[in-house]
Amino acid sequence: MAVLTPQQEDFPRWYQDVLTKAKLAENGPARGTMVIRPNGYAIWERMQTEVDARIKAAGAQNAYFPLLIPMNFFEREAEHVEGFSPELAVVTHSGGKELTESLAIRPTSEAVIGEYMAKWVDSYRDLPLLLNQWANVVRWELRPRIFLRTTEFLWQEGHTAHATEADARQYSRRILHDVYQDFMRNVLAVPVIVGRKTAKERFAGAENTMTCEGIMRDGKALQMGTSHELGQRFSRAFNISYSGAEGATQLCWTTSWGASTRMLGGLIMCHGDDFGLVVPPALAPVQVVVVVVKDTDGAVTPAASALVDELNARGIRTRLDDNVDQAFGWRATDWDLQGVPIRVEIGPRDLAENVALLYRRDTRDKNKVGLDDVVEEAHRLTGRIQTDMLEAATARRDAITSDCTTLEQTRDVAQTGVARVPWELVGESGEQDLATSGLTVRCLQLRDGSLPGSGDDKGAVAYVARAY
Amino acid sequence: MAVLTPQQEDFPRWYQDVLTKAKLAENGPARGTMVIRPNGYAIWERMQTEVDARIKAAGAQNAYFPLLIPMNFFEREAEHVEGFSPELAVVTHSGGKELTESLAIRPTSEAVIGEYMAKWVDSYRDLPLLLNQWANVVRWELRPRIFLRTTEFLWQEGHTAHATEADARQYSRRILHDVYQDFMRNVLAVPVIVGRKTAKERFAGAENTMTCEGIMRDGKALQMGTSHELGQRFSRAFNISYSGAEGATQLCWTTSWGASTRMLGGLIMCHGDDFGLVVPPALAPVQVVVVVVKDTDGAVTPAASALVDELNARGIRTRLDDNVDQAFGWRATDWDLQGVPIRVEIGPRDLAENVALLYRRDTRDKNKVGLDDVVEEAHRLTGRIQTDMLEAATARRDAITSDCTTLEQTRDVAQTGVARVPWELVGESGEQDLATSGLTVRCLQLRDGSLPGSGDDKGAVAYVARAY
Repeated sequence: MAVLTPQQEDFPRWYQDVLTKAKLAENGPARGTMVIRPNGYAIWERMQTEVDARIKAAGAQNAYFPLLIPMNFFEREAEHVEGFSPELAVVTHSGGKELTESLAIRPTSEAVIGEYMAKWVDSYRDLPLLLNQWANVVRWELRPRIFLRTTEFLWQEGHTAHATEADARQYSRRILHDVYQDFMRNVLAVPVIVGRKTAKERFAGAENTMTCEGIMRDGKALQMGTSHELGQRFSRAFNISYSGAEGATQLCWTTSWGASTRMLGGLIMCHGDDFGLVVPPALAPVQVVVVVVKDTDGAVTPAASALVDELNARGIRTRLDDNVDQAFGWRATDWDLQGVPIRVEIGPRDLAENVALLYRRDTRDKNKVGLDDVVEEAHRLTGRIQTDMLEAATARRDAITSDCTTLEQTRDVAQTGVARVPWELVGESGEQDLATSGLTVRCLQLRDGSLPGSGDDKGAVAYVARAY
Repeated sequence: MAVLTPQQEDFPRWYQDVLTKAKLAENGPARGTMVIRPNGYAIWERMQTEVDARIKAAGAQNAYFPLLIPMNFFEREAEHVEGFSPELAVVTHSGGKELTESLAIRPTSEAVIGEYMAKWVDSYRDLPLLLNQWANVVRWELRPRIFLRTTEFLWQEGHTAHATEADARQYSRRILHDVYQDFMRNVLAVPVIVGRKTAKERFAGAENTMTCEGIMRDGKALQMGTSHELGQRFSRAFNISYSGAEGATQLCWTTSWGASTRMLGGLIMCHGDDFGLVVPPALAPVQVVVVVVKDTDGAVTPAASALVDELNARGIRTRLDDNVDQAFGWRATDWDLQGVPIRVEIGPRDLAENVALLYRRDTRDKNKVGLDDVVEEAHRLTGRIQTDMLEAATARRDAITSDCTTLEQTRDVAQTGVARVPWELVGESGEQDLATSGLTVRCLQLRDGSLPGSGDDKGAVAYVARAY
């Protein structure tokens, strides 16, 4: 297999190779931008479908807010402007003229959505106001890397306003668990670590940031989705207020939450191997590819095509590869690269024997199956592979995770894996110290896996790792 | 009904009233931008779903290209740059610094997609290359109007490369008919006039532009979707070439095609009435709303809720309105404004009689129906309303369309309606002349309704109207 640089040899080059060889994405013409090719975009569409369904089930409605935001909007919330101003792309000319007020391309829509929430919320009856937006955003990146940090990326950003702090808190956790964690575990098969960010790692302007952290095959962590409690900071800055049942005017409590095309990077690096991408069946745009190995007498293609119809009728997303002009080996390598979970291979001899070869991408095992059993076996396998991929990723994650009792040991472990250490042993000064070695506290969790109510909770453990 | 300005009194104000009162959209903070509110965005999502399915059925694949395009990309195709440079929004600063090369926000992605097609097309085996993108674009508008002309709008843009002119031509027509015309007629219920643009009205850089023109209730035309044959202009400018089966290198033939959030404007103005929006059932995010009129003894809501479940189970998109704290009249007015096709109204007396009132939004007819028949009757009505709305819109269009035999008469007719006139009677000089009265040739068609092969076809008729 000379197609990809092996992971062990050079993980970043392996990643770049997968992007190129599986035709997922490439660099755009302007620095730090990316072109998402059809193979990559089809996966993103499946991510959108699954995440969007969960967001709607949580009661939020989609809307769309402008790309271009007057600069003064950013100046209303001090921490927000501080967090984003170094990253803003600014439009100064339009329609052939210089603008009287420059416009920023949104790095996030907190500010503009805040402005409209203030207009739309009047009484307690208008609450909670639950909005979501699928959009592109631009943040100038100094060290861009496709899917992980790009100047422009695609994401969804949710923004909600609530009457009480308790309601805002509950909703931000509902999104964290029922949307992000559920999607990442059960669709992406990524066993994310769910926790609370330290004050240092919080979103600019948030009072609390909660995160789903995926652990990649090189031992580094990837922040894959975050949910923020914004307290009353944005509602104060934008005057998002309501009159209560008794008539008194009160400020709302707001939240925001987002997940992006970064998840494509997480998918690649959590599951991919030296043969390419490995896509879990629940996510895969193509779950089964039926490959005509060769077709000397013209009988195999119709049989394969009939099988494709049967599989699709069974609700399995299936495609036919009858491109027999190309050598089978080439095609098999390509389907491996693209990570299609199940391959059904049929040649003239198989047809004569009334069998097909079932290949599963995750373990690369092959199994001969009677033609009549292919549909049921493929159906069973989609469920099986999904479970096995989550288990395998969990085992990999746990194998590189160690409990630590000193800062020294934490530093050692986190160089190549994940250190779990009592937060009181680290603290803010320890966190600064770890940063000098390129290590970050990814999140805090209580011993039972639940979220700390604050950063000071007794018994909280910190997950420390290198990160993307 | 004092909710909306009547159409007859002031159509533009009626339009603005519908946007506001039905909570579809409002102006954004930067000039010419818009905020699409959940009610409007839910309709756009349904449009996307239906159009996207047709695009995929035509074999195109979705991809994503960058928002920001180096300025030099626009200069490669002379007519293209001339057409777009007055409208470009330009980013000159990023990450706190002035950029060495300014970046344009895409007004369309022709140029950047051309660059990548050139990289991806190598041999005839790579053709046709059929790409589509859902994205936001920015064109500086001097007289912005929500959904019709906004500085930023949402659209899909298809871009394809073909080995032969005939293949490109056939594909651009396939998109025109199988995607746009089919969607607009059968989902939007808008009886679009399909034809070829005159040279004056062509897309910047196209050799042929084909269009779907909707006729609004005020007699003006709205261009709702276009498909362009770009010949070899872009392939020459970007060097999109392929080696044929015999090895010789040849330039590709390219097409592009797009439809946008403008369609929301078309939907409102083609079907809306003095009570608000009227949404055809095939498009409607909510096809049926079951309204609890009042519920004094608490028995109505459970019955209504059970009905909602049954309707949803029957595949009808249904919602419950059990908000009995608000007066029924208010709620009925609001569902009228939003244009939900069918309303099922139940109160305590109806429940006692085992009936419900079925209301259809298009004709505003009411009918008493036995509770057991509601589901089947609603199902039948969704089909019926769809057919009736297309028929009614066709009748309205035809009633204001007249055959003309002189330029004089054409000018008269087109002031308030649509003039159909032999193209040879108009010609390029007549077209200039009509323009001075604010009239444009919307498209050319042959007598049998088919597309002229060129602008010089004998027997071509011109459709002349005012336009948005």
